[in-house]
Amino acid sequence: MARSIDLAVIPGDGIGPEVVAQGLKVLAAALPSDVKLETTTYDLGAKRWHATGETLPDADLERLRGHDAILLGAIGDPGVPSGVLERGLLLKLRFAFDHYVNLRPSVLFPNTPTPLAGNPAIDFVVVREGTEGPYVGNGGSMRTGTPAEVATEVSVNTAYGVERVVRDAFERAAARPAKKLTLVHKNNVLVHAGHLWKNTVDRVAQEYPQVTTDYLHVDAATIFFVTQPERFDVIVTDNLFGDILTDLAAAITGGIGLAASGNINPTGEFPSMFEPVHGSAPDIAGTGAADPTATVLSVALLLRHLGYEEQAGRIEAAVTADLAERDGTPRDTDTIGDALAVRVAGSVTG
Amino acid sequence: MARSIDLAVIPGDGIGPEVVAQGLKVLAAALPSDVKLETTTYDLGAKRWHATGETLPDADLERLRGHDAILLGAIGDPGVPSGVLERGLLLKLRFAFDHYVNLRPSVLFPNTPTPLAGNPAIDFVVVREGTEGPYVGNGGSMRTGTPAEVATEVSVNTAYGVERVVRDAFERAAARPAKKLTLVHKNNVLVHAGHLWKNTVDRVAQEYPQVTTDYLHVDAATIFFVTQPERFDVIVTDNLFGDILTDLAAAITGGIGLAASGNINPTGEFPSMFEPVHGSAPDIAGTGAADPTATVLSVALLLRHLGYEEQAGRIEAAVTADLAERDGTPRDTDTIGDALAVRVAGSVTG
Ligand SMILES: CC(C)[C@H](C(=O)O)[C@@H](O)C(=O)O
Ligand SMILES: CC(C)[C@H](C(=O)O)[C@@H](O)C(=O)O
Repeated sequence: MARSIDLAVIPGDGIGPEVVAQGLKVLAAALPSDVKLETTTYDLGAKRWHATGETLPDADLERLRGHDAILLGAIGDPGVPSGVLERGLLLKLRFAFDHYVNLRPSVLFPNTPTPLAGNPAIDFVVVREGTEGPYVGNGGSMRTGTPAEVATEVSVNTAYGVERVVRDAFERAAARPAKKLTLVHKNNVLVHAGHLWKNTVDRVAQEYPQVTTDYLHVDAATIFFVTQPERFDVIVTDNLFGDILTDLAAAITGGIGLAASGNINPTGEFPSMFEPVHGSAPDIAGTGAADPTATVLSVALLLRHLGYEEQAGRIEAAVTADLAERDGTPRDTDTIGDALAVRVAGSVTG
Repeated sequence: MARSIDLAVIPGDGIGPEVVAQGLKVLAAALPSDVKLETTTYDLGAKRWHATGETLPDADLERLRGHDAILLGAIGDPGVPSGVLERGLLLKLRFAFDHYVNLRPSVLFPNTPTPLAGNPAIDFVVVREGTEGPYVGNGGSMRTGTPAEVATEVSVNTAYGVERVVRDAFERAAARPAKKLTLVHKNNVLVHAGHLWKNTVDRVAQEYPQVTTDYLHVDAATIFFVTQPERFDVIVTDNLFGDILTDLAAAITGGIGLAASGNINPTGEFPSMFEPVHGSAPDIAGTGAADPTATVLSVALLLRHLGYEEQAGRIEAAVTADLAERDGTPRDTDTIGDALAVRVAGSVTG
């Protein structure tokens, strides 16, 4: 485990900079005093695009590549056409840095309101494929804007890409108490991609006899998310299904204010990137209403990825304790960040 | 409105025949005595496939085409490889008969348990495109089964196909009290198909100034389904997003035991097909545990489609009353069907 962290920070737009500031505060509080933290801030996102028309120039991509990890706040504002920053910045980073594991834990913390009745016990993690499927940008349109327009989107799935993320998911399942892996796809309709996924899971499963595997169609999975979320442990799924399921997962575990994610390149060849699942929420930017908890939990994922398991656990414990002791009084972004940093610092032992 | 109905019935597998029997019972009770109902049963589904290897031979398709409408129970059993009956029978019917409006109302009936806390008021309808998108079966795989496999799925979207379903959705929205239409897509990632959908809605909206329109990404839509389902009135969406959203919609409105659907060809060129959203549930087949209500509500959609608006309303009122008076005592399939038929018959006026 490195005794220094060279971190790239992309605060982004809207509430992005506000929550990132709290994430960095908690990161600093969590790190052992002899670990040197160096941060470099990148001006990327809607502001930059409005000013220069640039989304992610090659020079920035090259510099980003040299860091140990990336912390990203949120990108976008209503003035940017849909797709420009998503494809030109966020997805470009995920693809360029081969973030094939898009890791999204879903835990219903104590004392946290869920829209579900009966206070279910929710603790699962979605391993969403991050570099393939319908996200590859392989599509187009002809006769655009005419009554004869045809627009296509191609989902591209490779044995190479599916197997590596499936293996990662099996490893994670094997390391958890319940040891259960559910593949979610739609293999009764998307038969080609579906069979590749299903066959891969069935084959790799033979190497993990201790892991129970299960298959659900994506439509059925959404039903179980709201009726039996306890049944899930690790879910492995395609890029688009993972996108949809993890927003639903966030909703049932208290909202996207608490949902963390890691865009991980497990080989370490490229820097991994950690970001809250929420967006830039321009409507509440500057009001102090943004909850930085999702970013703080993303910092925990970042630390775990870099080998700081104990520090990651300490941040998660601080969040759990903080949420458990909430009394409903609204707290602003900074107050929550301070409270978490104090808890984390207070729990540092040595 | 025709004084006779020439109905094709595909009972199918598992609980399919059980729920269809109740649907037909209620249909008979609802029809004015001078309307002649003729039914022809088609042996299609898993049983036929096991016996003959056939899914939907051309001869059956030709005969089906001659009916006024089709009532389908449920198709499939675990012994049939995934995709065979879905692509070879269900989707083949939807595509052959140009069922471009896949209509799925979601109403939270009184006295109906929902997994959501706080008993929200849910009353929306999803207009799912039924003949395009990722369902076209345009994909394939190469080097199948090898480490170099590539599998693709192509979503094909046409201005022709999108515009006609969008127009249908605007008509439905304009006829409802709330007059609100929400387009659900993922136009920040699937930019080509997304822009076709969004531009079409924006353009057609100009002809419907009385309808408020809204756009949501599919991932965000799942959040609102569980946190603010009241915000939806009519939703128009792509085939795959519609598949996912309508299962979630069924879950929050009491489960797929109550979810009806119509596969509608609005031009009348081909027979429309009505079916419960649930599957064949082989685990409970023969036990009497199947709830026929979804099929009965599908019969109401069928009647409405054929011009029997009053009779459709009467069935829906019977279901509403029946559910409101439930006391939690389990009732078997037949008992529920009888109760609904009695209510419907009792409400017939002349
Ligand atoms: C902003 C968008 C491109 C992104 C995605 O679709 O992956 C977001 O929804 C997410 O889940 O991180
Ligand atoms: C069985 C399957 C092909 C079908 C679909 O995906 O449309 C079902 O899930 C549905 O929603 O009617």
